[in-house]
Amino acid sequence: MSSLLGSRIKVQIFGQSHSKAIGAVIDGFPSGIKPDMEKICRFMQRRAPGGSEITTKRHEKDEVQIVSGIVDGYTVGAPICAVINNTDIRSSDYAQLRDIPRPGHSDYSAFIKHGQFHDIRGGGHFSGRLTAPLCFAGALCMQLLEKKGITVGAHIFSVADVNDAAFDAANVTVSDLKALMDKELSVINDEAGFRIKQRITAAKNEGDSVGGIIECAAVNVPAGIGEPMFDGIENRLAAAIFGIPAIKGIEFGAGFGAAKLKGSQNNDEFFYTDKTVKTRTNNHGGVLGGISTGMPIVFRVAVKPTPSIAMEQNSVSLSSHVNTVLSVKGRHDPCIVPRAVSCIEAVTAIVLADFLI
Amino acid sequence: MSSLLGSRIKVQIFGQSHSKAIGAVIDGFPSGIKPDMEKICRFMQRRAPGGSEITTKRHEKDEVQIVSGIVDGYTVGAPICAVINNTDIRSSDYAQLRDIPRPGHSDYSAFIKHGQFHDIRGGGHFSGRLTAPLCFAGALCMQLLEKKGITVGAHIFSVADVNDAAFDAANVTVSDLKALMDKELSVINDEAGFRIKQRITAAKNEGDSVGGIIECAAVNVPAGIGEPMFDGIENRLAAAIFGIPAIKGIEFGAGFGAAKLKGSQNNDEFFYTDKTVKTRTNNHGGVLGGISTGMPIVFRVAVKPTPSIAMEQNSVSLSSHVNTVLSVKGRHDPCIVPRAVSCIEAVTAIVLADFLI
Amino acid sequence: MSSLLGSRIKVQIFGQSHSKAIGAVIDGFPSGIKPDMEKICRFMQRRAPGGSEITTKRHEKDEVQIVSGIVDGYTVGAPICAVINNTDIRSSDYAQLRDIPRPGHSDYSAFIKHGQFHDIRGGGHFSGRLTAPLCFAGALCMQLLEKKGITVGAHIFSVADVNDAAFDAANVTVSDLKALMDKELSVINDEAGFRIKQRITAAKNEGDSVGGIIECAAVNVPAGIGEPMFDGIENRLAAAIFGIPAIKGIEFGAGFGAAKLKGSQNNDEFFYTDKTVKTRTNNHGGVLGGISTGMPIVFRVAVKPTPSIAMEQNSVSLSSHVNTVLSVKGRHDPCIVPRAVSCIEAVTAIVLADFLI
Amino acid sequence: MSSLLGSRIKVQIFGQSHSKAIGAVIDGFPSGIKPDMEKICRFMQRRAPGGSEITTKRHEKDEVQIVSGIVDGYTVGAPICAVINNTDIRSSDYAQLRDIPRPGHSDYSAFIKHGQFHDIRGGGHFSGRLTAPLCFAGALCMQLLEKKGITVGAHIFSVADVNDAAFDAANVTVSDLKALMDKELSVINDEAGFRIKQRITAAKNEGDSVGGIIECAAVNVPAGIGEPMFDGIENRLAAAIFGIPAIKGIEFGAGFGAAKLKGSQNNDEFFYTDKTVKTRTNNHGGVLGGISTGMPIVFRVAVKPTPSIAMEQNSVSLSSHVNTVLSVKGRHDPCIVPRAVSCIEAVTAIVLADFLI
Repeated sequence: MSSLLGSRIKVQIFGQSHSKAIGAVIDGFPSGIKPDMEKICRFMQRRAPGGSEITTKRHEKDEVQIVSGIVDGYTVGAPICAVINNTDIRSSDYAQLRDIPRPGHSDYSAFIKHGQFHDIRGGGHFSGRLTAPLCFAGALCMQLLEKKGITVGAHIFSVADVNDAAFDAANVTVSDLKALMDKELSVINDEAGFRIKQRITAAKNEGDSVGGIIECAAVNVPAGIGEPMFDGIENRLAAAIFGIPAIKGIEFGAGFGAAKLKGSQNNDEFFYTDKTVKTRTNNHGGVLGGISTGMPIVFRVAVKPTPSIAMEQNSVSLSSHVNTVLSVKGRHDPCIVPRAVSCIEAVTAIVLADFLI
Repeated sequence: MSSLLGSRIKVQIFGQSHSKAIGAVIDGFPSGIKPDMEKICRFMQRRAPGGSEITTKRHEKDEVQIVSGIVDGYTVGAPICAVINNTDIRSSDYAQLRDIPRPGHSDYSAFIKHGQFHDIRGGGHFSGRLTAPLCFAGALCMQLLEKKGITVGAHIFSVADVNDAAFDAANVTVSDLKALMDKELSVINDEAGFRIKQRITAAKNEGDSVGGIIECAAVNVPAGIGEPMFDGIENRLAAAIFGIPAIKGIEFGAGFGAAKLKGSQNNDEFFYTDKTVKTRTNNHGGVLGGISTGMPIVFRVAVKPTPSIAMEQNSVSLSSHVNTVLSVKGRHDPCIVPRAVSCIEAVTAIVLADFLI
Repeated sequence: MSSLLGSRIKVQIFGQSHSKAIGAVIDGFPSGIKPDMEKICRFMQRRAPGGSEITTKRHEKDEVQIVSGIVDGYTVGAPICAVINNTDIRSSDYAQLRDIPRPGHSDYSAFIKHGQFHDIRGGGHFSGRLTAPLCFAGALCMQLLEKKGITVGAHIFSVADVNDAAFDAANVTVSDLKALMDKELSVINDEAGFRIKQRITAAKNEGDSVGGIIECAAVNVPAGIGEPMFDGIENRLAAAIFGIPAIKGIEFGAGFGAAKLKGSQNNDEFFYTDKTVKTRTNNHGGVLGGISTGMPIVFRVAVKPTPSIAMEQNSVSLSSHVNTVLSVKGRHDPCIVPRAVSCIEAVTAIVLADFLI
Repeated sequence: MSSLLGSRIKVQIFGQSHSKAIGAVIDGFPSGIKPDMEKICRFMQRRAPGGSEITTKRHEKDEVQIVSGIVDGYTVGAPICAVINNTDIRSSDYAQLRDIPRPGHSDYSAFIKHGQFHDIRGGGHFSGRLTAPLCFAGALCMQLLEKKGITVGAHIFSVADVNDAAFDAANVTVSDLKALMDKELSVINDEAGFRIKQRITAAKNEGDSVGGIIECAAVNVPAGIGEPMFDGIENRLAAAIFGIPAIKGIEFGAGFGAAKLKGSQNNDEFFYTDKTVKTRTNNHGGVLGGISTGMPIVFRVAVKPTPSIAMEQNSVSLSSHVNTVLSVKGRHDPCIVPRAVSCIEAVTAIVLADFLI
């Protein structure tokens, strides 16, 4: 693996924040699919910055060039390569960081790994920018899933101490998820969305940042998908989700909350409805023993606050081996959560498509 | 994958709860290592049931037979196969479950996948029993890690609403971890341990069960281990940890707590000490950008309450397609947490050894 | 990989020639299959030594113990572990080889890799003995293939300078292949078989050994199986076949012979017969662009002469760093070819089942 | 896998013969390497067509654009993406082939797999054109190998019935291999080269094509590389080499010739020279038990005659389900062998670098 995701549908990500281009190669995608490019664009636009006052001012047009794998609008069975040129680059902003690693950022660990050769400009290959081609691949996989009636959707569950409503885990529907896609901010409760924006703006004004939680659901995944032990839905989703920068936790169903429950509370009763077995509650998050139960797959991920903040922070000079002080320049999101929503959806779609193909 | 873990050191688990034997094949383990078998036994004994009043009465001697890969006490470079015979089996207890799936258990999803062929006796291949050979493999890998000065240790962070102390994430030491290994119950604070036992006993007496959280640390992992995006330490650990039954969440460092913090609070300041770069706090849990920073790797996992409980529960009859009521017989742990501690350590050791070999 | 074969159906081989046991774990094999154990035994018997005057005198009863994955005669979807105990072991025969590597054998390269820890007794993990569990796994996969109407069969194409008839590559049938299975020696032409035996006996009497070629065919593989570039039928078969000891070459269809042909000779004309597209000749061996064409898959493999021979040979003493002379004791086949036939079939079945599942 | 090669260094190939671009992403390549781009160009030029009268007239400038992974001339540890634009495309030549598959070509098997969606123009993703980015990746890996003193080189062993000299397998040197690189035609014996050209020109003039054999050697590969059974040097090289279009066989050392030898002839005697163990002959091709012996790795591959020939051939019309006649238009090499030499070298370098990193 490394920057490669998937086993049957394989997504290879390439590029650095300030390289000539970034992109993805999607190998194993079936032939004969006609991707709705406009829909893909709209999906990618949700991740793109520059859309509002709460995101970085860096403008990325994220114009995707398909250089292979699609002919006359249809996939041909050959690897699909999508390239996004990097245009709005200001590399000079990053010179200092090669010496003084940003707290909470990969600068230091990448320096240990690659020394002076690490491309630190804009975070290099570790940049959130790399999620743009990931979203392209995810949008493509989402269209595969839709053909099977499966919908994936996520929303901002919380930012700092402001909470959105939660999914009704046992009953979340396709239309619940589709409604989220059309909003400027992916929230169930618009009033909560308003306060989330306020919270992010406040952090920005302080030269600080905030973290949050994203909740994701996949509905209509058939029962019986996934393998025991190390190749279940939870294993693969978790491995993939941690590929998105700034994710520090993942929980399925009741998750960490289940740790406080009794078995009699946490167990989800089975019952028959329309000749189908369902569970009344969904503390199991749609997965038991690594295998889908047919209930919505529901999980939450923890997103840490953006490490790059304007406020002065203590760090070290790697060249002179002394403690020093750092003030990060450059354009950074005060909160990654809003833009990460579509990344979570994208990765989920890739993992599920890989299982289902 | 499936019941296979690892890339360079590969651990293939086999067996069902009531099959003739269970075991593991460890391929890729280096030659010339003399495993301390007594230490491995002691490690496995921590997982074994029957040790106290808070675990299942099922007796597993877990006597490991090495059938290949070790000659005259030394590994020879060939795959190591370890077999544990299943002896104390009472299969008749499980007849009813084939028809009426236990809420919260894999019975239903496995039935959808394998139909009547699924070996439901004792949970079949989904049983916690399969963690015995996993612990053997982990104990072996732990000895590899020890040669590099790396120690892995875990403790019960909480059971239901009873909390143990937490690791001091930035300063946890080898001796902190070793101290845990000698205790009957892996807790930092023995008084908390006493209350945890009480809590578990109470659940047992109610015919119910309880969940909890396990915290795990690995110290002295060198900085620079792991790859960006999909092959970092968090990706691989998460994928592996979800292979242990009943795990529903994982968080690294501050984890879900980071979602409530500002960047200025969550970022861990770098500083020099003894010519080494460290961080004053460890909200990043020892991993940034998928790569180790040299700080302790710290994570917590959520363990759901044992789904098999004596209390009556609502379920369905898969044969007659009606709702019905189930009362689970058999011997089950009222809380998996105490025995899962060494499973978490084992899987962590396997993943780290795989990275470091 | 290493001693692991396959991606969806994974076969993990373990054991050494003189370890307590050898065996295989087959993970990913579908549930609900009732293996015909007697047929598996018969298949394995073809590989087993001791059956005639042209094989080693070592007796291997090759009694397979299924320790997991099969309940009441049916596969349950859990990994199948098959164990074969090593019984007729005479380890003392091999003491000298630790110092003086056998020419043409893995003794030297394994010594470089594992030093004194390498289990040299009987060739350790490199022994042809390890093909017994491989044949078990292959026999199992063969039964999967048979449900899809696919038959795999191989014969001795040549031993030294004695040739059997060749398959009629474009027209080989299921009954052609089945006929081979019932013979003591897998040859098309029994008179050639008689001379092959004579040739092997002659080599044996000289204290020498001989090599040969095996030809294998798989019929009724549907067209369209396999992926371009690195995941085609040829790629995977070749990688797997070289896992059998003593194989030094593989060619598909006309193979090396095609190198001498013109395009107009080598190209196989397409034509319609019974509304199906076939080719009149089968120089392509059933695979074009890595993908099956529906024609029989036909390939040949080169088997080198047994390296362990009674005749005196020049070698070195690794301990005293001088040239010396070696005379190999022990019981060795004067020709591996007859017993390797079923190994080739087994590996072919595993690879095809992995593609087709 | 599919169009992905390697495990630690992973090479993902993308593109079709007539797509906008073709290319490769190389993930896992170490940081801090300064590739000699001019050398890479020269290497790729050997594969490029249009160089002489015996290759296709299609002009490919094969100008490689590095879009990621290299900054200021040095690799940075991020995936390297190399893009080659397709310029000299004449798609109209291929319209007929969608209906009438070329004998010996992947047209038919790809049609079965992908139906009308298969990009048949120029062979699509199955085109030899895709070996251009493969050669780029190989040239890069070759420079890694050179840092370890390892050299890979290949030559035309034969075309139809014309033979070049063979490598002296036990004694082939770095300078032997380097000498080949500077020649217009990779042959040891220039007079043989002259006759090979004549043979190819003759085939061309007949509207026909010819096949041949390529011999490849890697010298200074240290002993002890590779793993037993399914992950040895032969397994991985074979799997990779069959990824090059038109390869139908591979043999190591004496290969199929060994099948005719006695053990006493085929076994390579060990002896000490300069305190190093070597073998006097090299029938084992540098690999025993899947592991390198330190002797040159030597293997040969069979290349079939180009299937696209101008002569009229019998085929079928897939749309009207009748037999018909085909006359292939377009520009095709009358012999792939000369251009495939560097492809074989490239793939060998990738596989060895993957083992040695």
